[in-house]
Amino acid sequence: MNKYLKIDPWCIMEEGFDGNRHRSSESIFSIGNGKMGQRANFEEQYSGSSLQGSYVAGIYYPDKTKVGWWKNGYPEYFAKVLNAPNFIGINFTLDNEPLDLAKCKVTSFRRVLNMKEGTLNRDFIAVLPSGLRVKVSVMRFLSLASPETGAIRYCITPVNRNAEVKVSPYLDGNVVNEDANWNEVFWTQLDHEASGHGGYLIARTLKTEFDVACGMHNRILVDGNECRDKPSHHSRDGYVELSYALSLKKESQLEIIKTIAVLSSLNHEKKDLPGDTKKVLKSAVQLGFVPMLKAHREIWAGIWEHSDIVIEGDDEAQQGIRFNIFHLNQTYRGDDPRLNIGPKGFTGEKYGGSTYWDTEAFCIPFFLCTAPASVTRNLLLYRYKHLEKAIENALKLGYKNGAALYPMVTMNGEECHNEWEITFEEIHRNGAIAFAIHNYTRHTGDHKYLIEYGLEVLIAISRFWSQRVNWSGEKMKYVILGVTGPNEYENNVNNNWYTNTLATWALQYTLETIDLAKQVDPAGYKKLAEKINFNDMEEPARWKDIIAKMYLPYLESEGVFLQQDGYMDKEQITVDQLDSKQRPLNQKWSWDRILRSCFIKQADVLQGIYLFEDRYDTETISRNFDFYESRTVHESSLSPCVHVVLAAKLKKTEMAYRLYLRTSRLDIDDYNNEVHEGLHITSMAGTYMAIIEGFAGKRVKEGRLVLNPQLPSNWESFAFKILFRGSQLKAEVNNRKVIITNESSVSVEINIYNHDYAIPGNSSVEIMRN
Amino acid sequence: MNKYLKIDPWCIMEEGFDGNRHRSSESIFSIGNGKMGQRANFEEQYSGSSLQGSYVAGIYYPDKTKVGWWKNGYPEYFAKVLNAPNFIGINFTLDNEPLDLAKCKVTSFRRVLNMKEGTLNRDFIAVLPSGLRVKVSVMRFLSLASPETGAIRYCITPVNRNAEVKVSPYLDGNVVNEDANWNEVFWTQLDHEASGHGGYLIARTLKTEFDVACGMHNRILVDGNECRDKPSHHSRDGYVELSYALSLKKESQLEIIKTIAVLSSLNHEKKDLPGDTKKVLKSAVQLGFVPMLKAHREIWAGIWEHSDIVIEGDDEAQQGIRFNIFHLNQTYRGDDPRLNIGPKGFTGEKYGGSTYWDTEAFCIPFFLCTAPASVTRNLLLYRYKHLEKAIENALKLGYKNGAALYPMVTMNGEECHNEWEITFEEIHRNGAIAFAIHNYTRHTGDHKYLIEYGLEVLIAISRFWSQRVNWSGEKMKYVILGVTGPNEYENNVNNNWYTNTLATWALQYTLETIDLAKQVDPAGYKKLAEKINFNDMEEPARWKDIIAKMYLPYLESEGVFLQQDGYMDKEQITVDQLDSKQRPLNQKWSWDRILRSCFIKQADVLQGIYLFEDRYDTETISRNFDFYESRTVHESSLSPCVHVVLAAKLKKTEMAYRLYLRTSRLDIDDYNNEVHEGLHITSMAGTYMAIIEGFAGKRVKEGRLVLNPQLPSNWESFAFKILFRGSQLKAEVNNRKVIITNESSVSVEINIYNHDYAIPGNSSVEIMRN
Repeated sequence: MNKYLKIDPWCIMEEGFDGNRHRSSESIFSIGNGKMGQRANFEEQYSGSSLQGSYVAGIYYPDKTKVGWWKNGYPEYFAKVLNAPNFIGINFTLDNEPLDLAKCKVTSFRRVLNMKEGTLNRDFIAVLPSGLRVKVSVMRFLSLASPETGAIRYCITPVNRNAEVKVSPYLDGNVVNEDANWNEVFWTQLDHEASGHGGYLIARTLKTEFDVACGMHNRILVDGNECRDKPSHHSRDGYVELSYALSLKKESQLEIIKTIAVLSSLNHEKKDLPGDTKKVLKSAVQLGFVPMLKAHREIWAGIWEHSDIVIEGDDEAQQGIRFNIFHLNQTYRGDDPRLNIGPKGFTGEKYGGSTYWDTEAFCIPFFLCTAPASVTRNLLLYRYKHLEKAIENALKLGYKNGAALYPMVTMNGEECHNEWEITFEEIHRNGAIAFAIHNYTRHTGDHKYLIEYGLEVLIAISRFWSQRVNWSGEKMKYVILGVTGPNEYENNVNNNWYTNTLATWALQYTLETIDLAKQVDPAGYKKLAEKINFNDMEEPARWKDIIAKMYLPYLESEGVFLQQDGYMDKEQITVDQLDSKQRPLNQKWSWDRILRSCFIKQADVLQGIYLFEDRYDTETISRNFDFYESRTVHESSLSPCVHVVLAAKLKKTEMAYRLYLRTSRLDIDDYNNEVHEGLHITSMAGTYMAIIEGFAGKRVKEGRLVLNPQLPSNWESFAFKILFRGSQLKAEVNNRKVIITNESSVSVEINIYNHDYAIPGNSSVEIMRN
Repeated sequence: MNKYLKIDPWCIMEEGFDGNRHRSSESIFSIGNGKMGQRANFEEQYSGSSLQGSYVAGIYYPDKTKVGWWKNGYPEYFAKVLNAPNFIGINFTLDNEPLDLAKCKVTSFRRVLNMKEGTLNRDFIAVLPSGLRVKVSVMRFLSLASPETGAIRYCITPVNRNAEVKVSPYLDGNVVNEDANWNEVFWTQLDHEASGHGGYLIARTLKTEFDVACGMHNRILVDGNECRDKPSHHSRDGYVELSYALSLKKESQLEIIKTIAVLSSLNHEKKDLPGDTKKVLKSAVQLGFVPMLKAHREIWAGIWEHSDIVIEGDDEAQQGIRFNIFHLNQTYRGDDPRLNIGPKGFTGEKYGGSTYWDTEAFCIPFFLCTAPASVTRNLLLYRYKHLEKAIENALKLGYKNGAALYPMVTMNGEECHNEWEITFEEIHRNGAIAFAIHNYTRHTGDHKYLIEYGLEVLIAISRFWSQRVNWSGEKMKYVILGVTGPNEYENNVNNNWYTNTLATWALQYTLETIDLAKQVDPAGYKKLAEKINFNDMEEPARWKDIIAKMYLPYLESEGVFLQQDGYMDKEQITVDQLDSKQRPLNQKWSWDRILRSCFIKQADVLQGIYLFEDRYDTETISRNFDFYESRTVHESSLSPCVHVVLAAKLKKTEMAYRLYLRTSRLDIDDYNNEVHEGLHITSMAGTYMAIIEGFAGKRVKEGRLVLNPQLPSNWESFAFKILFRGSQLKAEVNNRKVIITNESSVSVEINIYNHDYAIPGNSSVEIMRN
């Protein structure tokens, strides 16, 4: 853990420049707008250590690891998130010396991520080796209002003498990925052009053949006056640069405004890209920097209006939650059904591929509360549209009769992860996708989606489970062999309690949904049954048998559910006995040692208890929590939030608070020493969950919103909003009371501290806390 | 299975050309000489399906699969066997049409692998699209006498009219691997030259920077008369071609003799390669084709003298065993301690890397019997020399105190396989390496090696085992978690019976060897103990505790050792219930399905019983054999031989015979439908084992050779030789008697059918069979 950045409720702030921390800051200060995003790389040249990263949504490369021991059924490729052409670059030379912070004495350095307005800002004073002192102030943003555009305003002032300045804004398509095996290049260069104050280039990804076009336009002002000098043009394959040479007086400010457009063949015909890029760029330039920024800020204001959580009395926690809400909104806007939420968003190369079960298990609870139902519905439709491919995927693995196995990692519905223990065995994802349908339905009340789209997915998933189990003659139960649970520090285990539990739940929920469909839409149901050749006598009979006879491992001696068969053969050590120098285990221990140890990467049994808590009494939850929390190292960013929710339920408020801080400040304080690789975007939604389902105790039961708020001892109050079945509620919790305001015109029923309240539109209730 | 090739005791023979079988024949007819080898690719151009493969011993490429989910401790690279520059190529055009069997009508096609003499021969008549009919006869070999050289004699005769012929012998360094991910190239071209009737080129592997030089010299004869025409020269980067244009009369024979030299930087200074190549080539050319061939044949005669097995009455079995002995000797000559025996030898790309546990478990028993002790000793020294790297490897995985984990796959002592379940978990290899020391010692009686080299390896291996076990509080036993046994159709299992058994044996054998060393070489022992900081109080005490309290899973209900924990949860189906269309499983089922099934890829419990058979009574062996044989699909080529040995011991001679045929003709008859990828070189040694330890019942007990011969019902007799402790014995077994002839001057003690015989030098005993 690492308390390096300043605490501030609305900003992330770095003061002083430390090259050793630059990669981490590049991740933390990333900006994005759902269509593209980038690490906080410097605009000007920088010879220190840096992970260059600009990313365009949906653009990837299919990497291969064809080896002699390739197994039948392995995916064709694994997706690599690609570092896209660099469009932010602006190089400076001052009296023939480059401005390069790795080679300057830097003072007054301040980097600020303004989360309220969505801008990245940087101010510093640098003394070049020549002794020239310059003052720099930079702001950039990627527009939410017009998501194919962005702009940079870069101001530089020589403060101790006159200087000859060369300013060279450029576009560079000759970029590489740091995770390339042997520095291979993933782009070919199609076209480039420099003219006037602008330029553009088009690069194409190898194999996948996505085209990405970048355009730039530059304005130069000296002390606010437009500079009329024509730049010189330098371009070569994949590179376009303009160069402005100016003599700058001491204390004179040079300002360059670089407006950029980034378009891809995902949204434009390839042949139209040059023209469209120029058009989009032209509009942005005509609008101008300040109006562009204003439109961008307005969108952010609207986002915060719906999704902010206000914590009083604890700026650290406040900053943490806003950081998470901010990045989630930068990554996914919910308006393009082809996109999803990558684990690193636009902040790094790791975990190529866009969609994991993270979306269903962690992100959907966030979007359900903070965004219109259509956003979550799009996320469900994403999977609905991939159903055919999920069926193909299962077929490839030997399943029949329309069984579907959704990919563990995907870009377009195809599996694109290449580890068998994940791809073939981490099958609980199929349960998470089913559960997301349930979660959406209970939150929104949209049974129409459930019947019209959800049921088809549910039946395909249940068909998978019914073929994936086998009968154990030894146990006289159905078993599920060879799986990897959410705890990926175990691979290829038998009878993972979570997976077995989730599988039976999915079968049960499908049966219930079939019954519902028969009642409310018999014609639609009949049509579906015919389409997918569903025999509702035979298949449900087997499902019921499985539900009745599923084996769920249990550890009598401790009265806890057993994570999987054989878990107790491991040396039983608790995390508090572990030398802190050994952590994080995944950086200190070899993989086999981790697999053999009893340490849990992320909530596994507890994940199941979290999903189905109504089934278990408090004592059971408590025993399991104590047993597993003491063995969990939380080295998955997805882990602590589930523990927060359960700890809060168990009234272990202070433990919940400690875990909350870990999840909400995971990246800011770099708990797992890996933030330089990028941010944990999807787990950020878990942080939101930790507050809303943890401290606020939000549930949905029998169509009703339930809250059981509690307040960590160092919070004065917290407040949040929830979109629920057409209403928008604001909840304020302090030591004395809970105030719920229905800000919409739709009346809503809510249960708080086990009392029901009907709150008409535009009114409030106040409940005293005891 | 595939009875395509002709049965012949000394040859492999293909009659008639079938392009669909060409890839398979390319594997089966491969030739090699321990330093290089090649698939039976055609010399002339061929546009049909072919796997081009020439391989140079010790030359590899370090491929990478760097991915976002890379785990700590993963190896840096995995080795790729590289297709080396093509040196056999000779293109022909006849009246401007290429000779290309894919485009001709081919009759009288006959391809012969002469195993007695080590030559590849091909004869055919082809009718070109123009109607020209040519008769062709080709022979080639890679010299065992001078292993950097080889030669091709290619004769072609137009039979129905005169023809304009262009003959173009060439060298081509622009070669690719079929298993490249995206057709990437692994060679850069350094140099090439064409002059007179010869040429050479040098190519360098990327990353590893091995240089390979090929030289060629060509002679053209027409009807036996040297052609004095000068060729034209065509060369470019990585390619050298000579072209001879001749007018050939009907029925005139054109003969081209292409002599080649292939040298590598493994054996020559890089700067000397051009000169050395020319020198080596010149000697070969001066010697001439026929004397080169004669020297080569003489070496083969010597090999057969030691290692042949003669089977009378069963040409199919005879051909099978000779095929295996032939290829083993083509692959490994035992004279270079840096080389070892790759699973595919020089016959394909698969299983990159040279050394697996195959060497210790399967090849060493072969070389012990058929080659001087120095050959096996070199194979043991290979591991001794890698001890330091094995200790580094273990250190990387968290082991301390000089514990060694040998790599699963290696080129130079470093692990170069990239699957965690193999690399980190298939640790029984460490036991096989210990057992090989025991096997060598008991066969040769060379205790000096055991004390001077073996013990250091044994202690390092025992240190590994003692750290790899953990205490199970639940079982109150030591357990070994997270392993992959010989049966690779299970991964990451707990308490694999074989591994646990082998680990305790290794600890025990190390303790016994320490005692022996203390007795026979106390000074040497003391020096070793100091060198490796060995405390013979503490460490042995723990080892003894582990030996006493190791958990060995047992299945009471069947009275058999249990392959691993949880095996009985699987659906128990026997192989005879399996639809033959589903086989081989590894081509029909996805990997996860294989892992979940009860089917066994290769002997696992039975492998352990094979190694330690003296511990178990016949009933126990029989119960285990019946239980596991019925569940074993033998999809590892290493599997059937162990079953043969046990079946023979159990007097299931006919079953042993059936399994023997499968192992000995695995590639000839292509049982597993994969011979097109290359041959199963290391398992060929298992075939030898099947006869010697199976039908001949060879054992070594208390320093004495033991034989218990039995005869499959359709064999009239079989005869073999064994090198044993300085003596060479010949054994002949027929229906009536066993004749043992001591062909050496050293007297030998032997036990046959439970009777002891002392056989003086140069004498025989005859034992009547009852």
